[in-house]
Amino acid sequence: MSDMAAAGTRRPTDVPVHPFDEAIELEPTELAGRLRGRTRPDWANMVGPFGGMTAAVLLRAVEVQPERIGEPLALTVNFAAPVADGPFDIAVKAVRTNRTNQHWLVELWQDGAVKTNATAVFGLRRDTWSDTERAVPPVPAPADVAESGLPDMIVWARNYEMRYVEGGVPGPGAQPEPSSVTTLWARDRRGRALDFPSLTAMSDIFYPRVFLRQGAMSPAGTISLTTYFHADAQALHAAGGDFVLARAEANRFSRGYFDQSAELWSAAGELLVTTHQLVYFKA
Amino acid sequence: MSDMAAAGTRRPTDVPVHPFDEAIELEPTELAGRLRGRTRPDWANMVGPFGGMTAAVLLRAVEVQPERIGEPLALTVNFAAPVADGPFDIAVKAVRTNRTNQHWLVELWQDGAVKTNATAVFGLRRDTWSDTERAVPPVPAPADVAESGLPDMIVWARNYEMRYVEGGVPGPGAQPEPSSVTTLWARDRRGRALDFPSLTAMSDIFYPRVFLRQGAMSPAGTISLTTYFHADAQALHAAGGDFVLARAEANRFSRGYFDQSAELWSAAGELLVTTHQLVYFKA
Repeated sequence: MSDMAAAGTRRPTDVPVHPFDEAIELEPTELAGRLRGRTRPDWANMVGPFGGMTAAVLLRAVEVQPERIGEPLALTVNFAAPVADGPFDIAVKAVRTNRTNQHWLVELWQDGAVKTNATAVFGLRRDTWSDTERAVPPVPAPADVAESGLPDMIVWARNYEMRYVEGGVPGPGAQPEPSSVTTLWARDRRGRALDFPSLTAMSDIFYPRVFLRQGAMSPAGTISLTTYFHADAQALHAAGGDFVLARAEANRFSRGYFDQSAELWSAAGELLVTTHQLVYFKA
Repeated sequence: MSDMAAAGTRRPTDVPVHPFDEAIELEPTELAGRLRGRTRPDWANMVGPFGGMTAAVLLRAVEVQPERIGEPLALTVNFAAPVADGPFDIAVKAVRTNRTNQHWLVELWQDGAVKTNATAVFGLRRDTWSDTERAVPPVPAPADVAESGLPDMIVWARNYEMRYVEGGVPGPGAQPEPSSVTTLWARDRRGRALDFPSLTAMSDIFYPRVFLRQGAMSPAGTISLTTYFHADAQALHAAGGDFVLARAEANRFSRGYFDQSAELWSAAGELLVTTHQLVYFKA
């Protein structure tokens, strides 16, 4: 454990910390609305940290603000530049506080530059007419799907148990597929219960859709990621550490960019999140 | 015409200005990255201006920056507080400039407070493998669909010719519908050719999905709106002032909020935009 992590710690030193909790750990600084964190090797991507983890850290930075109202409703994270391995600062500002919701601006800084920024809307929920119009994808139970995953060089993916129902990552000799749909069961490998940061990270659990369509990996990266939270804290509590059903597909690939729309469902069939992203690609 | 609009004008005074161009007109101020505009009565919503027009103005504020690179790729607009009728200031900042893309932060200010903020990604496009995976909805031609629209009190909607294929706004005595899908042909009533700001505005052309599901109008408003631009300037030029096919649906309504995913197609069948929003509702 680094000295920086130790400085921010309020947990007993003899209890092993879950790697996710370690990665979202933020310590206060002398400046109000300014927190310090650091990337963790467990969450490394090909270059820099897993984007989903960066998104989770930015959401977490809002969650811990004393004046924060309610729960996350919407989050947009813009990946402006690669986050370097090591420490970072997060600047958090309440842009507007209304009676039932609050708008936030969050920036991840390294070396005097913004590497990632985000806008977040938090709000109070109240009982209204409710309906889930989207249909849950018909899939076999997790126990009936073989475990696989992403290539071992994608370090962060080792934190998840992944069971691909369709659209697994193309291996050697794979052919282009006509559909970009990937559907998988996924859960934290160590059984950590869902919360808003971990749900945020899982919103980016999908490898780039262009790999599937091309039958091969190629340079690609998320530019902007938006997540809408349908689940409240009670729903997340009910979902616990169980599998989440995750499904993603692209709408259009054109001149270097494609979009992806995705959804995360609890094992009990509750739509937890809908999430969208724009991705650059070179294929 | 107000004196403020006249001050920013570089057009011949004897040519009538299209109401859309009038509404996105921004004049420089003495401060770099600070522009001034004003709401226009033609674009009024029930309270304040049409959110799509506010989004268009924020995008326009980036477009006119001298250091702007490329075309819009992604835009997220957060409606933090009602925009009052009258003048507003827009603060535009390039957060990060990369070789092929650029990240922007844009804020609409009134009375010393941020009323709306946005993040935008602009970028250069280059030829790559391309494919539109989303299928164009099967619909009759615009000429075979009756013109209707939104209730007359929705002033901004009068700027568009709307032909609803399905899911028109519920009238008196309407019943709840099992589907939130609305599909319509829409075009600028005066034949103004599409550009990025007008495409941005049209991304918010849909009335709240909860109206359709409930069979009645009720308080509702967009909180956050994200638009992904698939079309480049050449595609918009080709689309001209022709009809756009617009389709929207909700995924989940829950405890005061719902999401909407939508798409805009050119009359020739090109996917121009995919766009998503989170909406609060009281029904």
